[in-house]
This record gives sequence, C-alpha cells and structure tokens, in this order.
Amino acid sequence: MTSPDATGPDTPRSQRIGRHCERSRSERAALDAVLDSSAVGTLSTVIEGRPWVVPMLYARDGDRLVLHGSTGAGALRHVAAGSPAALSVVLLDGLVVAQTTFESSANYRSAVVHGVLRPLTGDEKVRALNLLSDSVIPGRTAEVRPMNGKELAATLAMELAITDGGWTVKIRSGPPAPIQDDATDDERAAWTGVVPTTITAGDPLPSPWCPPGAPVPESVRRLVARHR
Amino acid sequence: MTSPDATGPDTPRSQRIGRHCERSRSERAALDAVLDSSAVGTLSTVIEGRPWVVPMLYARDGDRLVLHGSTGAGALRHVAAGSPAALSVVLLDGLVVAQTTFESSANYRSAVVHGVLRPLTGDEKVRALNLLSDSVIPGRTAEVRPMNGKELAATLAMELAITDGGWTVKIRSGPPAPIQDDATDDERAAWTGVVPTTITAGDPLPSPWCPPGAPVPESVRRLVARHR
Repeated sequence: MTSPDATGPDTPRSQRIGRHCERSRSERAALDAVLDSSAVGTLSTVIEGRPWVVPMLYARDGDRLVLHGSTGAGALRHVAAGSPAALSVVLLDGLVVAQTTFESSANYRSAVVHGVLRPLTGDEKVRALNLLSDSVIPGRTAEVRPMNGKELAATLAMELAITDGGWTVKIRSGPPAPIQDDATDDERAAWTGVVPTTITAGDPLPSPWCPPGAPVPESVRRLVARHR
Repeated sequence: MTSPDATGPDTPRSQRIGRHCERSRSERAALDAVLDSSAVGTLSTVIEGRPWVVPMLYARDGDRLVLHGSTGAGALRHVAAGSPAALSVVLLDGLVVAQTTFESSANYRSAVVHGVLRPLTGDEKVRALNLLSDSVIPGRTAEVRPMNGKELAATLAMELAITDGGWTVKIRSGPPAPIQDDATDDERAAWTGVVPTTITAGDPLPSPWCPPGAPVPESVRRLVARHR
C-alpha cells in the first residue's frame, strides 16, 4: 500500500505499472472480485484544477458501476456532466508485521475505475437505483414499495462504464517478505506474521420506534450473513 | 453517503456544504477522531487534468498527516512535488435499513484533508517514518532495528498539513429517518433499523518460517486489542 501501481494501456500515464508489479492484476475477474467485495468507494474528480473527493455507495452491474446521489449536490452534478472521474475501492485484509519496519506492510485489495459518469434517466434510472439498493441490502426492493416520483426527482443516478484498460487492481496478500540474508539471529528468532482484519456485521439493531417482535427482513438477514 | 457535503471557508468551492448539512461537522476534534480511527486512506490528486488515486497508509501527528511511499513511484514523486492533493478516509459503521429505499442509507465517518504534500528529509523523515510505523503497529519501532540508509533512500516520506478550512468531515449515525406521515400501516409494522459494521482483527497468524513458540510482540498485541 505504499506505491501507486496500475495496469492497462488506456490508463492515465500516471497510473501505469510502476514498482511492486507483482501486486498489480490484469485479469478482469480480479477487478470484479474486488468491486463485488465492497459497497463503499471514494469518487474522485477534478474541479478547478483541484481534486474533489467524496465517499459513495456503489454497485457493479456487469460492465458498469452504478452510483447515486442527491440532485441537490451541485458538485455531483458537475461530475455527472462529464468530468473525468475515478471510483476507488480499498479493502484492508490485514497488517503485515515483518522483522523490520521497512518490510512491514498491509494486505489489501484495491481497485480504481477511471471514466466519465453518465447520468441515467427514465426506466434506466429506476433500474439502476433498484440495483444499487438490492446490491447493498440483498433483495430489499422486493420488500418495500417502489420509489415514487418525488423521490426519483430528488435522486441522481449515474453509471461509470468499466472499459478495457480503464481500470487498475492492486492486491497484496500472504506473509511478510522472506527474512533477508543479513538478518540477525534475534531477527530470525522473532515473531513475524499477519494480523488479519475483516469487516464484520453485528446483530441488527431495530429503530427505537420499531414495533416489538417485528421480524428482521430476509434482505437484512442476507446482508448480515454476507459479513459473518 | 449520497451527497458531497463539506465545510470550511478555504475548502475548494466544490466541497463546501451542500445538502444534508446536519451530517457535516466543523469541530477540529471531530476531524481528529475520524482520522485517528483508521490507518488507510485514499490519496487523490490531479495529473494531466485527470484524477489520480491511490490507497495509502497514513498517521495523524498533531496538525499534519504523515504518508509514505516508494521513491520508485513516479506519480507519487509528482504529488510530493507540489500538486494539490486530498487524503480521504471513510469508515463504514453500518447500513441503515428504512421503510423505503429512498430513506435507507449508511452510517459512516468520513474526512477529507486538502493541501499540498511536502517531502520530508533528514531527521524529519526518520521521525515521520517511525511515527507512521508506531501509529499503525503501536510501539513497533522500539522492538526492531532502526531503518538503515538503503531503506531510507528507497522510501519517500511526506506530510500533509491540516489547515483551518482545509478539511471536511461528514458523519451519519443513528437509526433511519423517522417514519414519514404518509407511511402505510404495513410500513409502520415492518422492521427497520441498522446493521452495524466494524473492522475486526483476527488472531495473529505467524509467518510459515516463524520459529514455533516465538512470542507475539507487544506491539502486535496492542494492534489486535485496538480492533477487538
């Protein structure tokens, strides 16, 4: 997690493979696996020459990412109107404790998808918003009423196409780098390893006004099961 | 997590407060609390007019963030040389399940620090790298040898100052929005609430070559305790 590596011919020059190439992955399946392992990313774009960044829920739908936001958010409309954008996802899988601080590291999976956001309208918009809801809370839209016109009007839906060469994936996994030849006996005798980290879901907490005994919906049970 | 809100007079126009102002926080203590709750962020900058994004370990040290990377990473050197940059942190605290998809949301804490990275050299660099190591793995530098000259030469250390108005914090917590007046009886009877999520540390896994019985260092015990 210390150097900006990347892959793909159409990737901005700044994000092509640098050091630690062993950590870059070029198979599309690797990208999909990273994107499908999270629902929270960071959307970055450029406004007035400066980086603009906001956390975002997202869902992958085949060869696109679906995002949403409020139509009251001026900057988001700016992005939706065609600025170059990038959605970044990073999952921390562990902290890597080596015999030196230099070799210590993090295990992680990360992806960056570059492109231009396209605003969605009409049926495309409804489908995308439902897809996002069902991706974050699996099957939720079947349990609740459809979005109404007022809600749709207040919501911006966008897609970011996943294009060949328009994305990068970096993954580090496994133990620390092997002990170096010049390691001392003390260093060889010391514990090294990995502290694994995961995102864990706790028990669902009902709203204070929730009727006692109201059953937890299937969608919420699925969501919890995904993170247990 | 659906709209780009922010605060602070010197913040780029694109990141000033928009909608959902109740989610923005202007106290410096709120910023510090968010930054100190994580060690992984996303560094964004602008290269050739496009967003450039990379995941990063970081540590807060008073009024600055400390970052590091490989000196072999060309793009990182570009950032270190004075491009406008932003470090973004987001912690997912839960998924908020309301009686409609529109009112459903995420509980989270997020921060964005804007500024220009300053490369560190000499003793400043050594101190910053040690601080970063000790922040990620508490007290680790006291257990291992100092970085040597070759390691220091291969490592870039940078600071990002936290300046008045140069940062934004957004937090959502608590249950879903209250049930709306036009909710149906079925909606009122249905379960709503929050599925809490946390980053959890598992048991430390020794490297395959680790001598059997080597004791887990205090720094690693502290790291695990922080996420239990």
